[in-house]
Amino acid sequence: MAQLRIALAQVDPTVGDLQGNADLVVAWSRRAAEAGAHLAVFPEMALTGYPVEDLVLRKSFVDASIETLEVTARRLRDEGLGELAVVVGYVDRRSDVRHRVGQPSGAPLDAAALLYGGQVVVRTAKHHLPNYGVFDEYRYFIRGDRLPVVRLHGVDVAIAVCEDLWQDGGPVSVTREAGAALLVVPNASPYERFKDDVRLELCARRAREAGATLAYVNMVGGQDELIFDGDSLIVDASGELLARAPAFVEDLLVTDLDLPEAASPFTPAQTSADAHDGTVMTIDRHLVSAEPLPPYEPVEPPRAEPLDDCAEVYGALVLGVRDYVRKNGFESVILGLSGGVDSALVATIAADAIGAGNVHAVLMPSRYSSDHSITDAEELVKRQGINARTVPIRDIVEAYEADLDLHGLAEENLQARIRGNILMGLSNQHGHLVLTTGNKSELATGYSTLYGDSAGGFGPIKDVPKTLVFELCEWRNGQAGSSPRPIPQNIIDKPPSAELRPGQRDTDSLPEYEVLDALLDDYVEKDLGHDALIEAGHDADLVDRVIRMVDRAEYKRRQYPPGPKISPKNFGRDRRLPITNAWREPSARR
Amino acid sequence: MAQLRIALAQVDPTVGDLQGNADLVVAWSRRAAEAGAHLAVFPEMALTGYPVEDLVLRKSFVDASIETLEVTARRLRDEGLGELAVVVGYVDRRSDVRHRVGQPSGAPLDAAALLYGGQVVVRTAKHHLPNYGVFDEYRYFIRGDRLPVVRLHGVDVAIAVCEDLWQDGGPVSVTREAGAALLVVPNASPYERFKDDVRLELCARRAREAGATLAYVNMVGGQDELIFDGDSLIVDASGELLARAPAFVEDLLVTDLDLPEAASPFTPAQTSADAHDGTVMTIDRHLVSAEPLPPYEPVEPPRAEPLDDCAEVYGALVLGVRDYVRKNGFESVILGLSGGVDSALVATIAADAIGAGNVHAVLMPSRYSSDHSITDAEELVKRQGINARTVPIRDIVEAYEADLDLHGLAEENLQARIRGNILMGLSNQHGHLVLTTGNKSELATGYSTLYGDSAGGFGPIKDVPKTLVFELCEWRNGQAGSSPRPIPQNIIDKPPSAELRPGQRDTDSLPEYEVLDALLDDYVEKDLGHDALIEAGHDADLVDRVIRMVDRAEYKRRQYPPGPKISPKNFGRDRRLPITNAWREPSARR
Repeated sequence: MAQLRIALAQVDPTVGDLQGNADLVVAWSRRAAEAGAHLAVFPEMALTGYPVEDLVLRKSFVDASIETLEVTARRLRDEGLGELAVVVGYVDRRSDVRHRVGQPSGAPLDAAALLYGGQVVVRTAKHHLPNYGVFDEYRYFIRGDRLPVVRLHGVDVAIAVCEDLWQDGGPVSVTREAGAALLVVPNASPYERFKDDVRLELCARRAREAGATLAYVNMVGGQDELIFDGDSLIVDASGELLARAPAFVEDLLVTDLDLPEAASPFTPAQTSADAHDGTVMTIDRHLVSAEPLPPYEPVEPPRAEPLDDCAEVYGALVLGVRDYVRKNGFESVILGLSGGVDSALVATIAADAIGAGNVHAVLMPSRYSSDHSITDAEELVKRQGINARTVPIRDIVEAYEADLDLHGLAEENLQARIRGNILMGLSNQHGHLVLTTGNKSELATGYSTLYGDSAGGFGPIKDVPKTLVFELCEWRNGQAGSSPRPIPQNIIDKPPSAELRPGQRDTDSLPEYEVLDALLDDYVEKDLGHDALIEAGHDADLVDRVIRMVDRAEYKRRQYPPGPKISPKNFGRDRRLPITNAWREPSARR
Repeated sequence: MAQLRIALAQVDPTVGDLQGNADLVVAWSRRAAEAGAHLAVFPEMALTGYPVEDLVLRKSFVDASIETLEVTARRLRDEGLGELAVVVGYVDRRSDVRHRVGQPSGAPLDAAALLYGGQVVVRTAKHHLPNYGVFDEYRYFIRGDRLPVVRLHGVDVAIAVCEDLWQDGGPVSVTREAGAALLVVPNASPYERFKDDVRLELCARRAREAGATLAYVNMVGGQDELIFDGDSLIVDASGELLARAPAFVEDLLVTDLDLPEAASPFTPAQTSADAHDGTVMTIDRHLVSAEPLPPYEPVEPPRAEPLDDCAEVYGALVLGVRDYVRKNGFESVILGLSGGVDSALVATIAADAIGAGNVHAVLMPSRYSSDHSITDAEELVKRQGINARTVPIRDIVEAYEADLDLHGLAEENLQARIRGNILMGLSNQHGHLVLTTGNKSELATGYSTLYGDSAGGFGPIKDVPKTLVFELCEWRNGQAGSSPRPIPQNIIDKPPSAELRPGQRDTDSLPEYEVLDALLDDYVEKDLGHDALIEAGHDADLVDRVIRMVDRAEYKRRQYPPGPKISPKNFGRDRRLPITNAWREPSARR
């Protein structure tokens, strides 16, 4: 057996900020070296950030990624870190493929490289490209067809990338054929509730299939809508968990491994292997150092406990807000505080994310606002120490109504839109990011006003069903310990109301949220049709009603309206860039 | 040689409206039979509409598509149309594949079938799945691997679907091996400027490769942002154009073909063939009728002339507006008429699309509006006979300013947002669809107000650069003949201004549009990077400035504000439904 100390660098890069991400790689490589590690592994596309979307179709961007990789290799050596083997994700290209219709322009690769001694020792690329859920990688990448195996201190180390773990066949299968002792896997795997359990089980299964210890390093941080949760881990060849990093924070997971020494003397070789997925891959062998390390005293591996559901979701939301604000260059946020539970939760998340002093609440009472709305909101402001001002909207409503005869829903919407205008005006004037306070149940059913309460730059709870909003408020209050509970109990206990007409209640328009959310989960997340919903136990009339609401609300879930496409790249439809995007075209950086 | 009269039914289905689309197939099959046709061909997914996006992941939807196909086959026979062979696109599924991670749920197929004598004679599915530009078919479909060849009146007819023409190898290549005389290809191929030339050249090339006459039938109509332009055509085996349908209108293209008679007696067979794209396909032979038709007198095939550029773009925009309004159940539209060129063009397109009487303009002068803005807008209203009212915004601005201290950009945006509120209020009250009037140059550079001029349900010119806006106005005026020109010349001639502060001009913030649009075309459509833009002759400072503007404006082009994803299906990110969507879950239709 041969020893090896591995350090998984669970870092938070920014999409497009190649220089900043390279700095991150160097800084965390130094931490790894200081911890005595021999091998440091960074996440998928750590140098470019993930996902880069249409940036990858631009030659200048891919050029810069490749150059940054090579500069980083030299810089690691120049800064005394040349003896540490560093695996890092970046974007590369295939130069040997002929262009054909529909192939991503420039033939980009979702690549990873091993850096050592100032050199790029080996380059590889993701073999299995995900194109489902949040992934659109057939739009952006060509598949890789090599498995690099690098002998490091007498141990054969193979490298695969993210989705290569999720699919049968390919790099995992070839790792066994190659006889590698360790499979390291850079990932950019977004958070989803309950995914952590799936991930551990998957890593254990693939480790057994590969017959190798498996080191899974995941990105952490928020990027537009995606939250990378970290949760990096290492399992041995029998699938036993050896070490695990905490979720939602940057972390260096340092673990000592005891691995089978490579049996045969090293010979450089490129051999073909059936990947058992209908393709043939090339095993690409490289040497860094043939001799095992002299024996040393191993350290105890850390093993973070998984979080419970509310802690996990709340952690994701706080990280999402913090990174969206920071990575887009804002310092403060503004939101409408209605005295209801949604805006109370958003204010609390924002205060936890960026500090109460950077949160600005606006109370905008109308003729229909109840007294408790104002006093409850004021009480929350006092408890959390956020900034607040009051702007009554009655006179503005009357100015519109002098010229326009609006009734019913049109009048209700007008109030919400005036509030949206006030928040956007203050945002434009003072530079705060507007947070919207709508939840997923509202968004799904269209129970919101287009350009009203849906107006803003970021919606912290847009993917959170209303029932979970209540749970999160209770959970957060329960974390307060001996400090005052941040959210006044009356805000949680009173019946939800939009207060856009006298005595209005959410239940005038919607079923009870417990009933609604269960139905939405089956319809939206599970794609059940009408009959299947009824079979699942939902009330037939309600199923009809909710399906109609959800289908009709689709147009509200778009911001810039659609329009006829006449060109190759219509915004939104077929030109997609990250919002959080620090990429500056080479000379624009000067 | 054997004769065959083919009818290409270039129809306009509605996404999700299976019953209505089936009615369309029956009605146009009747027209084809009345014209003496032996074979009618409908577009790709004519029964479901295209693209159906996430609807296809729902079992109830795929069930309904398959059932509608079978019912339609029987109905054609019952209505006396059983002797007409009908090829029609629909959605089917593979039932013999094992589920794996990332495979579209339910294994849907982008399918086509041939109906005859009340039966579904053969079913096939698209082999090449496009996943670029507007297409995301790896998310939604499994690839087909069969080439059906049906002997009809002694002629072997093969069927391929849309993208199968655009890729090398696959069905076109196997058609030659199968010795088919005619290849019919249902398409849903969206319009793009100048694409008609590419399409003819492609069809000619593939006909030569297949060694067969090729009948290309394309969908027509608007679906959300996509415009299907029709332009169906037939080329012979040498690539010569035989017949061509007009663009942007429904049409039945009837043509007599003189085709090689099948050489060998028919035997049902399923044989394997190398598809020359790395896959193996099955040739699937079926018999409808072995005997050639008795000789008859052929009709002269129609051959529509291609449109010039402005006619083509204008036709696409008018069709896009008409279908979006109609398919979403609106009868009228409302828009702000500023006296500028953008809103003038949008009003004119709308009047051409749905009639001047259904167009409602609102003039909303502020303290900064010039006299000519109002008189020019009034002149346009008078010439076109659209409805108009005036709502001055000065008092509403003052009501906001009583409580808020807004200056500069914040004050400019406030005016645009008040106008947005007024239009949305009138829309909510009276049921008009709000049209936005922003063009692509503004949208690209962010020269617009979020929730202000960008507020609305449909943006007719959102993909039209400003220079083309001017061209289209001149072109449309030139079509007026002896009638008055619809757009007053002063609207076209005066320098563009948003009139949100005294004496404002677009050129205060933007370069001249000729310069800007050329640069945007290279940056947005062609993805050139900074240095490549300068190499292409653009001014270096301007390149820096425009790149920054375009990159920063990405957030304005988004739909519902982004927020952290925690569930399998976050709206927008990984749950995508058509806006125009007539699908009703089975019992919701009752």
